[in-house]
Amino acid sequence: MKKSDISTIIGLVLGFLVIIAGMIWGQASIIGAITTFYDLASIFVTIFGSFFAVMISVPMSALKNLPKAIRNAFFEKMISPAQIINIFVELSKKARKEGLLSLEDEVANLDDPFLKSGIQMVVDGIEPEIIREILELEITEMEKRHQSAITVLRVWAGMAPAFGMIGTLIGLILMLKNLQDQSSLGPNMAVALITSFYGAVLANFIFNPLATKLESKSGDEVGLKEMMLEGILAIQSGVNPRIVEDKLKAFLPPEERLKMLQENVGKGAVVNE
Amino acid sequence: MKKSDISTIIGLVLGFLVIIAGMIWGQASIIGAITTFYDLASIFVTIFGSFFAVMISVPMSALKNLPKAIRNAFFEKMISPAQIINIFVELSKKARKEGLLSLEDEVANLDDPFLKSGIQMVVDGIEPEIIREILELEITEMEKRHQSAITVLRVWAGMAPAFGMIGTLIGLILMLKNLQDQSSLGPNMAVALITSFYGAVLANFIFNPLATKLESKSGDEVGLKEMMLEGILAIQSGVNPRIVEDKLKAFLPPEERLKMLQENVGKGAVVNE
Amino acid sequence: MKKSDISTIIGLVLGFLVIIAGMIWGQASIIGAITTFYDLASIFVTIFGSFFAVMISVPMSALKNLPKAIRNAFFEKMISPAQIINIFVELSKKARKEGLLSLEDEVANLDDPFLKSGIQMVVDGIEPEIIREILELEITEMEKRHQSAITVLRVWAGMAPAFGMIGTLIGLILMLKNLQDQSSLGPNMAVALITSFYGAVLANFIFNPLATKLESKSGDEVGLKEMMLEGILAIQSGVNPRIVEDKLKAFLPPEERLKMLQENVGKGAVVNE
Amino acid sequence: MKKSDISTIIGLVLGFLVIIAGMIWGQASIIGAITTFYDLASIFVTIFGSFFAVMISVPMSALKNLPKAIRNAFFEKMISPAQIINIFVELSKKARKEGLLSLEDEVANLDDPFLKSGIQMVVDGIEPEIIREILELEITEMEKRHQSAITVLRVWAGMAPAFGMIGTLIGLILMLKNLQDQSSLGPNMAVALITSFYGAVLANFIFNPLATKLESKSGDEVGLKEMMLEGILAIQSGVNPRIVEDKLKAFLPPEERLKMLQENVGKGAVVNE
Amino acid sequence: MKKSDISTIIGLVLGFLVIIAGMIWGQASIIGAITTFYDLASIFVTIFGSFFAVMISVPMSALKNLPKAIRNAFFEKMISPAQIINIFVELSKKARKEGLLSLEDEVANLDDPFLKSGIQMVVDGIEPEIIREILELEITEMEKRHQSAITVLRVWAGMAPAFGMIGTLIGLILMLKNLQDQSSLGPNMAVALITSFYGAVLANFIFNPLATKLESKSGDEVGLKEMMLEGILAIQSGVNPRIVEDKLKAFLPPEERLKMLQENVGKGAVVNE
Repeated sequence: MKKSDISTIIGLVLGFLVIIAGMIWGQASIIGAITTFYDLASIFVTIFGSFFAVMISVPMSALKNLPKAIRNAFFEKMISPAQIINIFVELSKKARKEGLLSLEDEVANLDDPFLKSGIQMVVDGIEPEIIREILELEITEMEKRHQSAITVLRVWAGMAPAFGMIGTLIGLILMLKNLQDQSSLGPNMAVALITSFYGAVLANFIFNPLATKLESKSGDEVGLKEMMLEGILAIQSGVNPRIVEDKLKAFLPPEERLKMLQENVGKGAVVNE
Repeated sequence: MKKSDISTIIGLVLGFLVIIAGMIWGQASIIGAITTFYDLASIFVTIFGSFFAVMISVPMSALKNLPKAIRNAFFEKMISPAQIINIFVELSKKARKEGLLSLEDEVANLDDPFLKSGIQMVVDGIEPEIIREILELEITEMEKRHQSAITVLRVWAGMAPAFGMIGTLIGLILMLKNLQDQSSLGPNMAVALITSFYGAVLANFIFNPLATKLESKSGDEVGLKEMMLEGILAIQSGVNPRIVEDKLKAFLPPEERLKMLQENVGKGAVVNE
Repeated sequence: MKKSDISTIIGLVLGFLVIIAGMIWGQASIIGAITTFYDLASIFVTIFGSFFAVMISVPMSALKNLPKAIRNAFFEKMISPAQIINIFVELSKKARKEGLLSLEDEVANLDDPFLKSGIQMVVDGIEPEIIREILELEITEMEKRHQSAITVLRVWAGMAPAFGMIGTLIGLILMLKNLQDQSSLGPNMAVALITSFYGAVLANFIFNPLATKLESKSGDEVGLKEMMLEGILAIQSGVNPRIVEDKLKAFLPPEERLKMLQENVGKGAVVNE
Repeated sequence: MKKSDISTIIGLVLGFLVIIAGMIWGQASIIGAITTFYDLASIFVTIFGSFFAVMISVPMSALKNLPKAIRNAFFEKMISPAQIINIFVELSKKARKEGLLSLEDEVANLDDPFLKSGIQMVVDGIEPEIIREILELEITEMEKRHQSAITVLRVWAGMAPAFGMIGTLIGLILMLKNLQDQSSLGPNMAVALITSFYGAVLANFIFNPLATKLESKSGDEVGLKEMMLEGILAIQSGVNPRIVEDKLKAFLPPEERLKMLQENVGKGAVVNE
Repeated sequence: MKKSDISTIIGLVLGFLVIIAGMIWGQASIIGAITTFYDLASIFVTIFGSFFAVMISVPMSALKNLPKAIRNAFFEKMISPAQIINIFVELSKKARKEGLLSLEDEVANLDDPFLKSGIQMVVDGIEPEIIREILELEITEMEKRHQSAITVLRVWAGMAPAFGMIGTLIGLILMLKNLQDQSSLGPNMAVALITSFYGAVLANFIFNPLATKLESKSGDEVGLKEMMLEGILAIQSGVNPRIVEDKLKAFLPPEERLKMLQENVGKGAVVNE
């Protein structure tokens, strides 16, 4: 089971509550305050209008992989770099003692599909260049998929306020053409502004924040997969578990490498004699 | 016959319906609601005004090839990279067995004019450097044509809201100078806002989305043509069909190369022994 | 005589008519409608105000060469690349047959001052390195002059709407301070908006389009001059007219080189034997 | 004790007073004027709403190190480059005379934790490559921490006015829906504008200025730490104090190196004979 | 005495008059029209508010050298490149004839402090590498000082309209809270807009134009100083005055080198024989 990215979820839930709170604060009727902001035509123009403009802008395939990519923004990566090092040290020890075929038993215990398929290929005796090519293509493909989703979100974040404004202009024009009924002036103008409100919320609370989160996650995930790729090939080549560990440490983020080194210094392991 | 790009077409048709729906939603008279948004003077100022500003901005030749370039946004590339590989494998087999002249019969069956003219030149015995030069110039020329159309669309996308605002300012100034007739105030202001509405729709629903779509299509098409160029020259040089296939696979997008490799692995073709 | 750039001129004339049409459309009094938009104080604030801000921003020399550079936007280059090739082939034939001094007669027939001075220097027996240095400096100098004019136009295009807004703020503040006379409210506000209108038209219909046009023209003209420079030096070195032609063809834009090559292929000139 | 960055503190205090002065200037009731600008719902929507959008945008770790990074904007670096040179000259003299172990006594006198831990490692006899690796990782880690804080501030500076506008739209829509009570129109609209006011102040007075200050400080601090790193390694290698001084002078900003050189020239030290 | 930069001064004086003219044009009372735009609280919020935000943004040292850097925008460089060449040719002739010490008499006649200190160092017999290092550091230091001033002006140009808007929001909120007195509505709103007016004028008429002017001046001045540096070192090395001249000509802007070359060609000096 994947671990949730609590900052995305807390941000969405509490941010949504704050916006709702702003709507009902000091209003006599809470239900009335909320329904004030519900307008089906406005939803149509802002959300669907901007969606169709996005559809003209990007290829169909980019739209299709959007939901899967967005889901990434809600989950943390399952394995930490330090855990990956441990897994590979264990796997390489076993492989050295009992042979590569013995890893077959371990494959079932691995959670990460990338890691799983890599070790399976090692067990199956696929040539190392082929394994590297397949895994590198999987990484490139994943990166391209992330990037195309980020582009869709950024284009949408630009289109949503634009269609909010288009909706507001439609509302204002209709209202101004029919000024006879002075009493409906206020409510009509309120409806006209609702599309601008929808557009601003969609762009600034949904699309842009998700795109920014996906951008930082994409970089992290690529780094993790590259670390796994090196580990898989190191195991196949049968090197010493200690060397596997050293190789993978080069992929650690600075603060974790720093912690490891300082611990070693503390233990007196690297003292100048 | 070319295959339509359904996302462009669906986006345009449904987006247009959504905007229309926003105009007539909740209005007593549907026809009245729609005609409210038709104003010939506003069309003049927004569409033609911005068009003439574009005309000052770009060279005549860029305007001339615009319609042809825009048509690209509505069609998918006819042939997939996988199909191209198949075509070239077949052609190279035939060429090896029956000689280059035998390809003459195949030329008529080819849909793509670039591919057609390339194979025709091979049949005609043109020297390979000349074929490469001609085909590379055709690719550069195509890319330059795409780019000039994208530039025109982006300039226009910037000009349309600017002329929308110019039109709204003209309308407001005329209205404010003649305030005696209070009853015409609303309708006059509605008309003033119509140019802003036109400008926003043109930029955000037409010009910018089309430019973004053309940008992604241009890259795809250049890649496809480069793949064909390599295939044509490989056939002419008379290499083994197997090598033709390998050469062209390097042009496949990552997900397709991945699929092919995984199929091979599944068949046990590349197992380490 | 120079050939006009019809797209700049048509764009300016028709665009101006469209803006005028927007002003008088549906107005009872045409003269009244037009004079509504004439306000001397607004012209002062928008045009002169932004001009003086430009004057603070750029060095005096950049302002001085602006009119000459703008004139470029209204003219096509006199000679096409194909014509230049023809001229140089003719000149080099004559020089080979009758000697470099015989070119003196041709100088008078040449329209382009750059070409004229270059050939004159050849006739005068100036050393080739000196000719190259002088002509290259003339090209650099021309490019710098173009670029400084484009910068002035872009700075002005940014300043014009800013001073339009400054004028509108001045008008609004004066109007709001003297609200006693309700009947003058509308006309006063109209006047306040006129500066915004001027600013928007200047930036979007004049300065930005001209800067964009000058940018594309500058690149073309530099290419043309570089072609001439190579031709002049080739003639001086006395090489074969055929080689002069080949050298200059490398400067042709892709579509023209393509056409030439395809014609040669059509004639069977480059067939593989 | 750290020295305060007076420009940040003066700017914040006086800027805050100026904004408060703008609120109460010419108002009959000072308390009334200030409470006019206090609206709990607006604080919720603008500050918390934008905060939660930031939370969706960035990883949790970036948020966690924000307070520590912001604190940097309020303090000057403790040690000037010239002081660092003096410290290292003294340390290297002592190390040459009494041995590296004698530096143990000096460690307690050092204020900077980076310098302290570096000299401690030298005293402890850690190998130079390990010291370099640890200190370089600490510098990289510090830079990454600064950068992530700057990113959070810039994202927030973009979100604050956006949520200010969202709050204003909420307020306007609620107000327009309930126009019956004409007397509450003004105050309601005032409340609607308060969120825009909060958003503008947060972005332009807090988040953007702090991000800009942190950017310039980050560069300074990295330079200082790199200077210390070189000094620590030079001491360990036991080179001449004079050479330590020369090495570190290369890190001085131009104006200080210039001053030093001019003093030397004044003393006649580098006269050409 | 320094020569004024007339375009900066004319731009500021006439631009200021144009803005004043826009304020009093068509107003009954000229004094009344001008005092309408004077509001002490608005000056506080816009000018001081944005200044304190700048103070938070940049280091104290950048603020301190701002006035000196701004003064540069009002003066032309004293010496033209051609004059510098003449000065160095004269100096090098004298140095060759009467020895380097004889230049002592000339130092007093030199206006430029950079040139003065350079020649003085030559007279004092400072080693050439030291002279080069000192003068290069002075150039770098000058460039850094210019750049920091440009950054302050650009940050301020962004802050001024932001604080103009903050002031307008404060004014509007106060006005809307106290709508009882309908007659003060107009004047109050006028005052609210005055801060926007100040912000727009400061950014578009003062800060941005000055920053743009300083940018172009900084490049010119660096070029001039580098020319002097080469000249000073050439004199010290005792080379031929003719070679000094040739060396310095390489620093001339293209149009001046072109003029010199064309004059030489006119005199028949470089004719091919």
